[in-house]
Amino acid sequence: MNPEIQHSIEQLRAGDPRALARAISAVENRTPGWSDLLKALFPYSGKAGVIGLTGPPGAGKSTLVDQLARHYRKHKRTVGIIAVDPTSPYTGGAILGDRIRMQEHFSDPGIYIRSMATRGSLGGLAQSTADVATVLDASGRDLIMIETVGVGQDEVDVVRLADITVVILVPGTGDDVQTIKAGIMEIADIFVINKSDRDGADRVEREIRALQSLAVRGDNWTPPIVKTVATDGTGVGELAEAIETYESYLKNENLVLKHKIQNWQDRLLEMLREALLERAREQLGDGNLSQYALEIAEHKRDPYTLVEEIAGKVGT
Amino acid sequence: MNPEIQHSIEQLRAGDPRALARAISAVENRTPGWSDLLKALFPYSGKAGVIGLTGPPGAGKSTLVDQLARHYRKHKRTVGIIAVDPTSPYTGGAILGDRIRMQEHFSDPGIYIRSMATRGSLGGLAQSTADVATVLDASGRDLIMIETVGVGQDEVDVVRLADITVVILVPGTGDDVQTIKAGIMEIADIFVINKSDRDGADRVEREIRALQSLAVRGDNWTPPIVKTVATDGTGVGELAEAIETYESYLKNENLVLKHKIQNWQDRLLEMLREALLERAREQLGDGNLSQYALEIAEHKRDPYTLVEEIAGKVGT
Repeated sequence: MNPEIQHSIEQLRAGDPRALARAISAVENRTPGWSDLLKALFPYSGKAGVIGLTGPPGAGKSTLVDQLARHYRKHKRTVGIIAVDPTSPYTGGAILGDRIRMQEHFSDPGIYIRSMATRGSLGGLAQSTADVATVLDASGRDLIMIETVGVGQDEVDVVRLADITVVILVPGTGDDVQTIKAGIMEIADIFVINKSDRDGADRVEREIRALQSLAVRGDNWTPPIVKTVATDGTGVGELAEAIETYESYLKNENLVLKHKIQNWQDRLLEMLREALLERAREQLGDGNLSQYALEIAEHKRDPYTLVEEIAGKVGT
Repeated sequence: MNPEIQHSIEQLRAGDPRALARAISAVENRTPGWSDLLKALFPYSGKAGVIGLTGPPGAGKSTLVDQLARHYRKHKRTVGIIAVDPTSPYTGGAILGDRIRMQEHFSDPGIYIRSMATRGSLGGLAQSTADVATVLDASGRDLIMIETVGVGQDEVDVVRLADITVVILVPGTGDDVQTIKAGIMEIADIFVINKSDRDGADRVEREIRALQSLAVRGDNWTPPIVKTVATDGTGVGELAEAIETYESYLKNENLVLKHKIQNWQDRLLEMLREALLERAREQLGDGNLSQYALEIAEHKRDPYTLVEEIAGKVGT
């Protein structure tokens, strides 16, 4: 192994937060050497539990995740948090939020928080999030929480790489069920109704129950509904318990490996797609791409035939 | 050309709605022959204007799109609508909504509505939407409207394939700007504040203006803000005018071809990725995929090295 990578990994495994931050940046930004780093880190990974948390904006996810982190710290478990924040260049929310939250936990090296902003569709957000989780996992964290803001396919892709998925809803947003359509309901192992001291919490619960009665899960687990008020910590212990109960269920039913295999099938295909696109881009070259695009825009060339031709060349 | 495809295309070009529906299904579902069909249709495409419309759930997009379609029909222009509905199996919204809307316009062959549900992340929603738009375009529609529900990367990918992008907001959802973070603000050529008779419309307008002052567009177009009440048609004429103004701007600044080239660059890479993934899957075989996933889940194999190996084989 490259001695520089070897050194980074030793520092990272020894708990150096700067080494961890550097490794995460290298993986997130795909800087040269990122895949060698991941190859070297992979053998150390696979020990952490990975919890995905998602829900619509304003559901209080960050506060809940922070409370959950505090809870686990009380039980001496180390925590890594990946906040996937679909921030536009307009708002810069990811970086700002990151700093504020980092500060709050600054005194505790047992909590490491990292924000990731969404990048262009070609970057593969779910992929880089999963890779960052692998780095945190290899660094020896007991638990990794991945929180995403939003309810689209992106979020589904991100959180379904977790071992456990928690979907967080809130009362009073009017069309609660509407906003959580996009495949999110199906992936919930546990539901949380946060801000449950607000009017309408019971209605949200009824709506979830109604949807559940229509759902077909591949197993016989009925996702529990936990009511929380994250701002004062109400229900956080119950949520941790629900997570533990689901973990035990997976173990007792021998589903842990089955889930991991399913996750890796998805990830492998995604990784393969990313690798192939990279090769296709090399093959194509930037100049050729714009030339081809021009010819297609002018209708001098048909894109479907072109793609078949190029795809045929990659790898030869 | 395959005489069967030749025949389908003749029927489709002659305005047969069943031939159109069949062609769209073939393309959407990637049934055998889909790419030959697109190759044959491509030369007939490129004439329609493509308008993308997006915004958060509950913004009244469908109603607005319907009103806009009515407006264009009054001006004798034919319209194709693609409603991209990220429906979960729970709600079945796409199909239901499709039927209801189809019925309403049933008497007018000048409006063709097609719903597309989101599929798994590997299906490439933006890709298949763009291909369906190509079919509608080749069928001779003057205008194609693509509406998406949601504000994630998926929606950005879908609408940015349009010539013109309209972002629809509504007052009173509490955190308006929050819900439209994910890259949507940057892609708007025109903003609509729908349900603008509600309290808070002015606030939404101020928020958009504030965000615009921070934004950097690659051109000197300032996206106008059009206020509408889609349910009674208020502002729909103004929206059509704003769309026309933007079209003229693009023409006058010689940006039409430039935009099309940019779009085709994105699409080509996406198409290439899809084609390569298909080949990778063939190369891999389902049995191998699950075997590999098992070995990785058991940490007997490192996925990063494996992907490099497989990617190296594709196409050889």
